[in-house]
Amino acid sequence: MDRGQAPADAEALVTSGDAQHPANLIPSLCAKFWTLGWGPRLHCAVGGAEGAHEEDSQQPQQRTYLRSPPCHRPSQCTPLFLAAFERRGAGCCIHTHSQWAVLVTLLLESSSSDVFEINNIEQIKGFPRGPSRPGNLGYHDTLRVPVIENTPHEEDLTEHLEAAMDRFPDAYAVLVRRHGVYVWGDTVHKAKTQCESLDYLFQLAVEMRKLGIPWISNVPRIGPDRP
Amino acid sequence: MDRGQAPADAEALVTSGDAQHPANLIPSLCAKFWTLGWGPRLHCAVGGAEGAHEEDSQQPQQRTYLRSPPCHRPSQCTPLFLAAFERRGAGCCIHTHSQWAVLVTLLLESSSSDVFEINNIEQIKGFPRGPSRPGNLGYHDTLRVPVIENTPHEEDLTEHLEAAMDRFPDAYAVLVRRHGVYVWGDTVHKAKTQCESLDYLFQLAVEMRKLGIPWISNVPRIGPDRP
Amino acid sequence: MDRGQAPADAEALVTSGDAQHPANLIPSLCAKFWTLGWGPRLHCAVGGAEGAHEEDSQQPQQRTYLRSPPCHRPSQCTPLFLAAFERRGAGCCIHTHSQWAVLVTLLLESSSSDVFEINNIEQIKGFPRGPSRPGNLGYHDTLRVPVIENTPHEEDLTEHLEAAMDRFPDAYAVLVRRHGVYVWGDTVHKAKTQCESLDYLFQLAVEMRKLGIPWISNVPRIGPDRP
Amino acid sequence: MDRGQAPADAEALVTSGDAQHPANLIPSLCAKFWTLGWGPRLHCAVGGAEGAHEEDSQQPQQRTYLRSPPCHRPSQCTPLFLAAFERRGAGCCIHTHSQWAVLVTLLLESSSSDVFEINNIEQIKGFPRGPSRPGNLGYHDTLRVPVIENTPHEEDLTEHLEAAMDRFPDAYAVLVRRHGVYVWGDTVHKAKTQCESLDYLFQLAVEMRKLGIPWISNVPRIGPDRP
Repeated sequence: MDRGQAPADAEALVTSGDAQHPANLIPSLCAKFWTLGWGPRLHCAVGGAEGAHEEDSQQPQQRTYLRSPPCHRPSQCTPLFLAAFERRGAGCCIHTHSQWAVLVTLLLESSSSDVFEINNIEQIKGFPRGPSRPGNLGYHDTLRVPVIENTPHEEDLTEHLEAAMDRFPDAYAVLVRRHGVYVWGDTVHKAKTQCESLDYLFQLAVEMRKLGIPWISNVPRIGPDRP
Repeated sequence: MDRGQAPADAEALVTSGDAQHPANLIPSLCAKFWTLGWGPRLHCAVGGAEGAHEEDSQQPQQRTYLRSPPCHRPSQCTPLFLAAFERRGAGCCIHTHSQWAVLVTLLLESSSSDVFEINNIEQIKGFPRGPSRPGNLGYHDTLRVPVIENTPHEEDLTEHLEAAMDRFPDAYAVLVRRHGVYVWGDTVHKAKTQCESLDYLFQLAVEMRKLGIPWISNVPRIGPDRP
Repeated sequence: MDRGQAPADAEALVTSGDAQHPANLIPSLCAKFWTLGWGPRLHCAVGGAEGAHEEDSQQPQQRTYLRSPPCHRPSQCTPLFLAAFERRGAGCCIHTHSQWAVLVTLLLESSSSDVFEINNIEQIKGFPRGPSRPGNLGYHDTLRVPVIENTPHEEDLTEHLEAAMDRFPDAYAVLVRRHGVYVWGDTVHKAKTQCESLDYLFQLAVEMRKLGIPWISNVPRIGPDRP
Repeated sequence: MDRGQAPADAEALVTSGDAQHPANLIPSLCAKFWTLGWGPRLHCAVGGAEGAHEEDSQQPQQRTYLRSPPCHRPSQCTPLFLAAFERRGAGCCIHTHSQWAVLVTLLLESSSSDVFEINNIEQIKGFPRGPSRPGNLGYHDTLRVPVIENTPHEEDLTEHLEAAMDRFPDAYAVLVRRHGVYVWGDTVHKAKTQCESLDYLFQLAVEMRKLGIPWISNVPRIGPDRP
């Protein structure tokens, strides 16, 4: 993707006629996700470009931004996006405060668990097996999303996020207890659909809990073996 | 309905000034249903035309598509759409991963049931009695939607879907456990309204369960007999 | 309100440049309510004008319609609208299949009740005291909405609706068990806001029930007496 | 912000080409919040300008309005907005009948509590510590929102609102039992985001209660001390 010219004036609004340019993709994703009730705070980074619906706070600038007016300092979660970009080669990383994500971490906290696991739900097929494994998860596979504990300062999450990435090398997302979720993907499109699929599964998991249905089940396999 | 010319170039975007043309109907339905939270994966086929919000995967092409660029292979659920078109003469078939549909199949699984049944709800009147019976269901009739077990590969659902169609010759929908629902109708409009009515009933059924209200009831008939 | 000319051709689409004309008001209300999830079936009548999102069915035409093409016969609930227009002088009547309305009637059925009652909720102030009483309900007043049993044929509801209107002369709405609600108002605007307020209260009532909070409470009065 | 000229004609519609002018900000906020399901009644005041989605009622006019046609008297909650403007120097005050806010007050009533308290949720960081304290709340801080009892006449809330402001000098919001919430902020943007964050927390709190998760928890601090 053509990232275009770095603007001469850091305060200038970057514009592009290309719908795939981060200057267009990021606001469009933010607007779309906002309507889905993913909380007033949503962060999305495409490569080095970052867009925010969030109160930005103290943090040194660490790389080139698409647009970096002095009145908006880069968000605290930049190092977390960098972890996804650099460790996993992600093309896009999305951070939300989705209530379903937060509720799942609270339910897991009650059982002292630090990993969300669900299987035998069709939507699981929306996730790749992992960077080193071809294809997507199957219906009977277990999707695992690690949970890390929240820290008072978002930048302190980085080392825990990186540790979780190491512990779960095939994961495309990390939940943060009482906070939200980070989801990444190889491309903007994949990050978006994986974020949507994950939120679908978090919401389903909360409703399953309300109805007394366990997240992990043992369902017999039907149909022939296929490659 | 005029299906128009098969495009000379399989990659060309098919366009039409006719709002009822599948090239216009399908994207419009997909966009509308997306906003209803019917999951990021939604499939809709109008006759031979198919539109998708879904990761397409391996499957041989079996009939002429409205538009079939090499980069998007036909979706796995094509044989399922064909079953509706060929066995029931459906004009349109819609497949969703609606959470309400999935939750209903999970609740039925707990009671080892393979059919969703509900009666004495006004919205039931939105469904025809069946292909061989005139008119729509009445308020006191029981709407029955069979449930089939999910398979790891979507194309393997076909024989089970067809068996369910045979077992329930009057059904206009089949639930797939832990997956979603297939709904069809004689026309695009009927498929759409039946899909909406069914989702309404699935959501209502889940809420009824949360409130301890049974799906099947015995309600006395009021008013005169009418034809 | 100027109802304009009766169209010479009953099939002609009635149009008007006046935003308050029923030909504009009705589609606008229908579209708006649809997005609120009030079910795929919604009926709205303004004076003699009627718009529908509903499968119309067998019924003799009983008065002049704004537009009455032979392919769409007047809806079954016309006599119910007439009851509101003629008995209460309503300027607009709205009928929805709101799930919250249906769930409230189901919860009341469990306790063999035929009236919804709620008090001490601010939103109650959105309702007039009644046609013969000035002003709106107060915070401590009890809003009462009668419930009638559903009938297989919607036109058979009329006599029960009229009886409920007689029994509750101050009501601006009637719930229909397992079906939905009829709400009317002196003007289109009042019918719309009363319909919204009522749906708000039905949804709140269902959530209160889930949380174990009773609909009727005894809350001490605070503040001075005022006229 | 330039408030512009007071219109010579009190009935004239005030218009402005400035998107930040109250004549544009207020309708835009009202429309946005309406779609979030914050109840048909929503009030928003920017400085002396007020916009409403509410049935206005009896009350003497107490200050200059942006637009004050005789047919719409100022809303009953004007003195409440004045309390926020004058006691806290707020730039904007928003009043909603959010169902989540009402449900939180009902849950607190069951435990005879007059303050909503929640801690260890990331979204808490969206609130300032208070007018006299720099920075925002931290993750482990407890957000406190006082609850006052509702009065039959909204203007009688004023003294209770002011007393709650005195009792909780750092609060940016006051809940009204069985009624809704008042939220204010230094600017329109801050009032809007604080209102959104608070509604997020109210909804989360209701869902936590349904799932048996307490609002106040004791979570160990992780990470280094930072300024």
